Amino acid sequence: MNKWYIEKGDQGDVVLSTRIRLARNLEAYPFPGRLDVQSKKKVCAEIRDAALSDGSNTFRWIDMASLTPSQAVSLAERHLISPEFTTDREGRALLLTEDESVSIMLCEEDHIRLQVMQAGLALERAYDIADKIDTMLDQRLQYAFDERIGYLTQCPTNLGTAMRASVMLHLPALDATGRISSLAATVSKLGLVIRGAYGEGSSARGSIYQISNQITLGITEQAAIDNLRAITLQIVSQERAAQEQLLKSEAEIDKIWRARGVLSSARLLSADEFMTLVSLVRMGAARQIFNLSLEKLNELIVRMQPATINAASGQNLPPAKRDAIRAEAVRTALLTQGDDTQ
Amino acid sequence: MNKWYIEKGDQGDVVLSTRIRLARNLEAYPFPGRLDVQSKKKVCAEIRDAALSDGSNTFRWIDMASLTPSQAVSLAERHLISPEFTTDREGRALLLTEDESVSIMLCEEDHIRLQVMQAGLALERAYDIADKIDTMLDQRLQYAFDERIGYLTQCPTNLGTAMRASVMLHLPALDATGRISSLAATVSKLGLVIRGAYGEGSSARGSIYQISNQITLGITEQAAIDNLRAITLQIVSQERAAQEQLLKSEAEIDKIWRARGVLSSARLLSADEFMTLVSLVRMGAARQIFNLSLEKLNELIVRMQPATINAASGQNLPPAKRDAIRAEAVRTALLTQGDDTQ
Repeated sequence: MNKWYIEKGDQGDVVLSTRIRLARNLEAYPFPGRLDVQSKKKVCAEIRDAALSDGSNTFRWIDMASLTPSQAVSLAERHLISPEFTTDREGRALLLTEDESVSIMLCEEDHIRLQVMQAGLALERAYDIADKIDTMLDQRLQYAFDERIGYLTQCPTNLGTAMRASVMLHLPALDATGRISSLAATVSKLGLVIRGAYGEGSSARGSIYQISNQITLGITEQAAIDNLRAITLQIVSQERAAQEQLLKSEAEIDKIWRARGVLSSARLLSADEFMTLVSLVRMGAARQIFNLSLEKLNELIVRMQPATINAASGQNLPPAKRDAIRAEAVRTALLTQGDDTQ
Repeated sequence: MNKWYIEKGDQGDVVLSTRIRLARNLEAYPFPGRLDVQSKKKVCAEIRDAALSDGSNTFRWIDMASLTPSQAVSLAERHLISPEFTTDREGRALLLTEDESVSIMLCEEDHIRLQVMQAGLALERAYDIADKIDTMLDQRLQYAFDERIGYLTQCPTNLGTAMRASVMLHLPALDATGRISSLAATVSKLGLVIRGAYGEGSSARGSIYQISNQITLGITEQAAIDNLRAITLQIVSQERAAQEQLLKSEAEIDKIWRARGVLSSARLLSADEFMTLVSLVRMGAARQIFNLSLEKLNELIVRMQPATINAASGQNLPPAKRDAIRAEAVRTALLTQGDDTQ
């Protein structure tokens, strides 16, 4: 079965993916932060039974404690779990669909963190899927819910809808022209936050950013989604215009072709260099300087993260070996695309 | 007719070409430095008549004053004339065979500077060709010759055989490992000199060096050639060993593939960057990391020099435009080689 991220998405030149995340807790238990391992396991089992009770085998059950560190970090690199979920894995579990579009973290910060990923800009579709699963679970479990506030969560910033909607964006031109920081200031006034999707702090590896809603209290899910969608579309059109402008320069076109040349020929590629170069190549593909599938590039970005390479190889590889494997995989991926626009 | 430099040469992985240059003067005239333009023209005409008298049309006659600066400098970039011959062109002329293997500068430092170029290491063959032409001219002209000293030349360093034999070498590995300077010291003790073939001073663009004999007095042509040949073969085997050693490193192999990737994809290429990258690619081809014709690369190095690009385009191009033309020509040359070893 194909993974969700190789699907062609709406606004796919700029938007990589959309994510809806719902936090839910069981009324009968304290929040996970106050549970011991045994109680966590009990909570996990209860939710698992509810999720699997229709016998449809939709979800695969992953006991987080059974994974190697690389396997766990690889799930985070693929944005299927949070980075926090890779540590203290005892008493935590993951429910995952085969196409990896739906994942449910059990006993992360909340008892349930239900997450739906879709390619491109697809907030409504992602929300519909999340809502259906949420309704199904709600029928079988007793959620902690307050009529006045809404869903109760461990962290007060999630109270209310307990929904975080986010869109992953590739913004190389806004990045190159230094306009990200003013953009970040603007969207924060609109109740949204924008941050790098890979790596720590403000530096966004590969110019990949995530924009998400911050407000969950006193706003409906639909209003939050409409708001995020409208602002995303504005950023998309700004990025497109910035790319068109940037690529009027012969030197920028040259940089893009060179990046493609290096990715197609290098024998060693670090994760950092890969992200820098693939960002240029993705902009080239987005603006049709050459004919490369954006979905293949999106998939490559996911597959080429360090722990994901380790997890795929089944070993904890030294960085130099990983760089060689990355280089070969990237080369193969670019060379098998049969492009004739050189 | 093919140019001499696209022939496959002996020791071609390291030796690009061989050159024999003979200086001759006419007894009846002062050296060119003491001639006015009218007298120079008379000398040129006399030699031309001698060279063309057999009616074989072997030589094309080029009045140096009729060339654009780019055309003149291009001849120097192709090593058909000396850099000095591109200035003060009034009263100077060039005789050139169609394959460009034989050129005769008239009224350079001496009345006659006869030069034969051959691909690879071919000192004997180049000398034989030079000697035949020299004999033919000698039968029709009265050379300035002293029984005791030999051929008389304007500069005393050429007195005697008045022969300069030189070999152009590609020494990327001896360069990378910093062994060129000690090599230069060694060969100078043996009466030879080694210097960069492109660019000024000690920095050798593209790691291309020229080694030549310095001594012309009290030594026969044959002895000078034997000496140069023996030392060249030693340098060739040192360079080969150094390349094998260098290419045990994955990082060096990576550098070579990246260089090829950039040359195959860049849209702008300066002359300096081209020389740096083509040197790496040539080493890759020499050590058969991939299958690229060394002769094609040799030809590319000649064709991609700045004035030669200008001369081929028939205009004095701005550098940025030249960099775009160079990038396109290099790309085409590399992509049409139908290599399947990627």
